[in-house]
Amino acid sequence: MSHTFPYNQLFTFTESVFLSMGCPPDDATLATETLLSADLRGIDSHGVARLIGYVRLWEAGRINATPRVGVVYETPSTAVVDGDGGLGLVVAPKAMNIALEKARLAGTGWVSVKNSNHFGIAGYHAMKALAHDMIGMAMTNASPLVAPTYSLDRLLGTNPIAVAIPAGEQPDFVADFATTTAANGKLEIAQRKQIPVPEGWVQNADGSGSTDANAVKNGGALLPLGGDTGSHKGYCLGSIVDIFSAVLSGANYGPWVPPFVAFLQPPADPVGQGIGHFLGAMRVDAFRPAAEFKAHMDNWISTFRNAQAVEGKQVIIPGDPERIMAQHRLLDGIPLLEPVVKDLESVGKKFGVTL
Amino acid sequence: MSHTFPYNQLFTFTESVFLSMGCPPDDATLATETLLSADLRGIDSHGVARLIGYVRLWEAGRINATPRVGVVYETPSTAVVDGDGGLGLVVAPKAMNIALEKARLAGTGWVSVKNSNHFGIAGYHAMKALAHDMIGMAMTNASPLVAPTYSLDRLLGTNPIAVAIPAGEQPDFVADFATTTAANGKLEIAQRKQIPVPEGWVQNADGSGSTDANAVKNGGALLPLGGDTGSHKGYCLGSIVDIFSAVLSGANYGPWVPPFVAFLQPPADPVGQGIGHFLGAMRVDAFRPAAEFKAHMDNWISTFRNAQAVEGKQVIIPGDPERIMAQHRLLDGIPLLEPVVKDLESVGKKFGVTL
Repeated sequence: MSHTFPYNQLFTFTESVFLSMGCPPDDATLATETLLSADLRGIDSHGVARLIGYVRLWEAGRINATPRVGVVYETPSTAVVDGDGGLGLVVAPKAMNIALEKARLAGTGWVSVKNSNHFGIAGYHAMKALAHDMIGMAMTNASPLVAPTYSLDRLLGTNPIAVAIPAGEQPDFVADFATTTAANGKLEIAQRKQIPVPEGWVQNADGSGSTDANAVKNGGALLPLGGDTGSHKGYCLGSIVDIFSAVLSGANYGPWVPPFVAFLQPPADPVGQGIGHFLGAMRVDAFRPAAEFKAHMDNWISTFRNAQAVEGKQVIIPGDPERIMAQHRLLDGIPLLEPVVKDLESVGKKFGVTL
Repeated sequence: MSHTFPYNQLFTFTESVFLSMGCPPDDATLATETLLSADLRGIDSHGVARLIGYVRLWEAGRINATPRVGVVYETPSTAVVDGDGGLGLVVAPKAMNIALEKARLAGTGWVSVKNSNHFGIAGYHAMKALAHDMIGMAMTNASPLVAPTYSLDRLLGTNPIAVAIPAGEQPDFVADFATTTAANGKLEIAQRKQIPVPEGWVQNADGSGSTDANAVKNGGALLPLGGDTGSHKGYCLGSIVDIFSAVLSGANYGPWVPPFVAFLQPPADPVGQGIGHFLGAMRVDAFRPAAEFKAHMDNWISTFRNAQAVEGKQVIIPGDPERIMAQHRLLDGIPLLEPVVKDLESVGKKFGVTL
């Protein structure tokens, strides 16, 4: 059973919650916009369903509602940003703005972020570049749930990569994907429905393949993208995200990344500060005139979209399903599952805010 | 049956062949070093086994032995390089040098290349950054053999990504992988051995899954990294490589990328010039002191290498197998299959050069 809420109603509610946590008004608005971009785009696992999680981390003293987000080191095309323990939902957009400004001046901008928290969906941050005729990139590390190839230990997060590329008349190209075969959110859905998961998603505690949706809970792990014969490639990708996000910035990496859930304590021997992100922007016209680039992107996109397809299917351009979902949900509202609504109501009660 | 040749013997021979094609001495040396890095590192499909292919392309007038490789557009952190139809083995190292120089001045350097040809292994170019305490990246597009998710048409190449990251006392991290489940070279080996390939590598002409090593030859296609439930992610990665390499630079992209084999003609309606590469360099100390970064990389690498593993296995650090292979082959020589030796002898005869 699900209830559908207008976007504006969820926006006002969520913003009020962030204000109640003590976020300055601009930060509360920014955090809300970032968080709800997931619900709009149909990535339900990363949207308001996680609001209660952020609140619990704040209650545990692990999120700073009034961070002083600032550059601690920089060159013409790079910066390291210290998120001061703030919401990733606030820290990452501010860091992305720095990347955009660097790109304006130097052609490209690359910002590695430490001392942050979960930043919502990667795609939202990458897409910030599009309005400036820039290519945007966003990555983040996350708490360890993934076993590298041959490993029994969980050493990597689902470590997503997003790349947004502007087009002309065609909708923009927006890729946003976890570097595992399946994102953790998909596993949670299978757990709730009590159905098995496809092979290649998870392994048991002894490293054997499994189709049990509860395998990760029982000491197993998520598997890197690539399946039986290619998981070393997903392991490479997840590692690159971890290193760019955290070893470059001075955040925690690998098994030291602090957990999102407040009931689990962060490792007692941190190797850095908070979790890390990596944000990039490349001005298209740092390579060729923007109009020329976009005309070729239009040709690229329409060629792929119009390819011969398996019967009953169509070749999908990355970003198409999420863009169409966002158009619908902005008009028709955002459906939330019963347990999510209950969580929001309990958060509302805590702060005296009505959903 | 295989014959083993000392590295120096193959080097002298290959260099003589490039000189005979009319390459200037420095270019011949550079092309040889680039090409043979594949044989040293155990990527046999991309080394001297392809020398005859480069010669045939040159005979067909599709490789310029005396290119004027130059920057046609730039900003402080970016450049577009025109390869003037030269060997990718020469064009890409020159473009990478420009990326390194940009990174020295601006923190990072990003070079998109048009009008080039195949550049050997991506990892070699990325690794050029390591000696400068920089992170190196290299990508290239390639002739279309890969069907995007749901597509019957072949629209992408195996489009590899390489990322090289310097460590301190540990060996450097070097990831280098095709964005397909299996590289085309592995398929060719299965064809030669007349054995089936694992599921998820290829599809038939009608889009159905196949284990037939000849499926691609018979109108089928290679599949993007990710297998049954994740191939859209490999499709995203291959697309990003294609766009960064060719839409940014003005090279041919998607189905317009010219074939490596001389007996197939390039498309009659090109959308750009030659094939494209994308090369990047990031100075580690554009983010934090290099010694600090490398100490944490050492910790990252030893943590992963020493993880609990499936019985009889060890967690492999990207680049380990190729580095160890190169150490052996430099000492013990490079084994070449009989057909490869025959090809080299026929190339030698053409130019009056003895193997």
